[in-house]
Amino acid sequence: MSLAGRILEGDLRAAARLMRDLDDGFRSAADEMKQLFPRTGRAFILGITGPPGAGKSTLVDQLTAAYRRRGNTVGVVAIDPTSPFTGGAILGDRIRMNRHADDAGVFIRSLATRGHMGGLSRSTGDVVNVMDAMGMDVVIIETVGVGQDEIDIVRMAHTTVVVSVPGLGDDIQAIKAGVLEIGDLFIVNKADRDGAERTARELAAMLEMKQTKPGDWQPKVLMTEASRNCGIEEMVEEIGNHRRHLVESGALERICEERSVRHFMDLLKERLFAEVYGHIRVNGRFREIVEEMTSRRTDPYSAVERVIAERFAAGATPLS
Amino acid sequence: MSLAGRILEGDLRAAARLMRDLDDGFRSAADEMKQLFPRTGRAFILGITGPPGAGKSTLVDQLTAAYRRRGNTVGVVAIDPTSPFTGGAILGDRIRMNRHADDAGVFIRSLATRGHMGGLSRSTGDVVNVMDAMGMDVVIIETVGVGQDEIDIVRMAHTTVVVSVPGLGDDIQAIKAGVLEIGDLFIVNKADRDGAERTARELAAMLEMKQTKPGDWQPKVLMTEASRNCGIEEMVEEIGNHRRHLVESGALERICEERSVRHFMDLLKERLFAEVYGHIRVNGRFREIVEEMTSRRTDPYSAVERVIAERFAAGATPLS
Repeated sequence: MSLAGRILEGDLRAAARLMRDLDDGFRSAADEMKQLFPRTGRAFILGITGPPGAGKSTLVDQLTAAYRRRGNTVGVVAIDPTSPFTGGAILGDRIRMNRHADDAGVFIRSLATRGHMGGLSRSTGDVVNVMDAMGMDVVIIETVGVGQDEIDIVRMAHTTVVVSVPGLGDDIQAIKAGVLEIGDLFIVNKADRDGAERTARELAAMLEMKQTKPGDWQPKVLMTEASRNCGIEEMVEEIGNHRRHLVESGALERICEERSVRHFMDLLKERLFAEVYGHIRVNGRFREIVEEMTSRRTDPYSAVERVIAERFAAGATPLS
Repeated sequence: MSLAGRILEGDLRAAARLMRDLDDGFRSAADEMKQLFPRTGRAFILGITGPPGAGKSTLVDQLTAAYRRRGNTVGVVAIDPTSPFTGGAILGDRIRMNRHADDAGVFIRSLATRGHMGGLSRSTGDVVNVMDAMGMDVVIIETVGVGQDEIDIVRMAHTTVVVSVPGLGDDIQAIKAGVLEIGDLFIVNKADRDGAERTARELAAMLEMKQTKPGDWQPKVLMTEASRNCGIEEMVEEIGNHRRHLVESGALERICEERSVRHFMDLLKERLFAEVYGHIRVNGRFREIVEEMTSRRTDPYSAVERVIAERFAAGATPLS
């Protein structure tokens, strides 16, 4: 049976294998995804983002437990900072959420921030699609920071939760302003710390300055203390409120469409580059260009123009 | 006179204009870059990275002043977190380093983390090349965080400084481990804070565990208090030591070559996508695909395969 077939029957090992194949860029993996695609679109996708040190992992762990108590299955895609040396994720699946390790209703996958040929957002999109097709009711995407990749990733989510923490510096404030527009719910975690109330008030004040139309969603600011499981139920409830708002306003459908379009564009970018780069490596053109650039006989701008002109003029079919 | 010609004569406004044109993806900008490329390769490129709140902007400001006192001209490329709403950098050029505003020997450019069609590392590479061609002796690249883009950016630098700060949480520790291999010098800033000595000792202990060969560069850990200009001279001196090591070991040449290769690959990725995406938008294919995906008659994987097959089979010359 195909990997896709086994995944649809709930085979977790087949799912893990397909995710690896996707990351390794196997052509067969795309064929499996074609089979899974019609079975996607049912999971609720929740994005959790915020600066390092905000306690997101603990929050995700508590959220997972809360959804499990409600009888929902949960997939978690954790985007971890990467070791540039080993290329692997630093935190990794194994040290994450040990208490859910024996629960077949929880599927956790760490993605390293590096080493995704087609970009991290494409890889994340694939993993979310596999978890969705597996029948996970909720898929949580957890990211650190606010790089371009990470904002793209959070935009895949139906509901985006921005996690803050009291007592961080000025650039954190700037980042906070940056994520103000993408958050559907704001959490001040570590609410037992000095300044938590003030952080929450400041966030609420910034949110009030946003221009809104009648019927727009009004993001709330909630306080949690994830390590003691405080405030989690209220958080789950407010996430549910936002989800209902999306369904009733028709926004959910639009978000899903936008996600498909972005996935298409990410894949297109990746495949085009892989095709042309593969071609010039095989035919020796790449080595020539590197030598020409090193000796300053050419520059990167001219070299790219020549490669593109040559490749399209050739009219060849893609390497298979 | 061409923009490139004016830039080579020291026209700052022409440089700013070309940087905008590059970001807007104008074809003419690539032609200007071809003219500038032979004049690049002289600047010393310094990367400064570290988590939000570490005081990097203040450090860069003090470093700029220190290099100016030595008679060096300084370019600064600051990668700022972006407002996803406006698309612009949050901090921006104007609030940065006001005290250097009237100094023609300092050129500052902020790049937002979003809105770079070809990726942030390509945009940063272009800006560094323009500053290099302008004759800036030192080009400082400042980034927040450790996303994939940001590690790629830091790898453009000849010398990479990783800034830490005492008293951050567990994921900061993980990030610290992640950047351990890319740092040529480690700074514990805000050295007046509790725990600064311990942070410095921990970093030094982690660095000692690295496998090294005889002749390898041994990164040091230095303490600074940028807001009071403490430790900056020692930092500049150690950066100078690393630079000499690069020249003497022949590593500088290798770094420069790798930078050209990565720039070529970034540009190739961008141009290929722009060419094919432009084509399917103009001929209506893109709209068809979006409709087919929305109605689930196709999936992103199949759609990409069809577009690539069609485009290469056509054998057409690129749109100009």
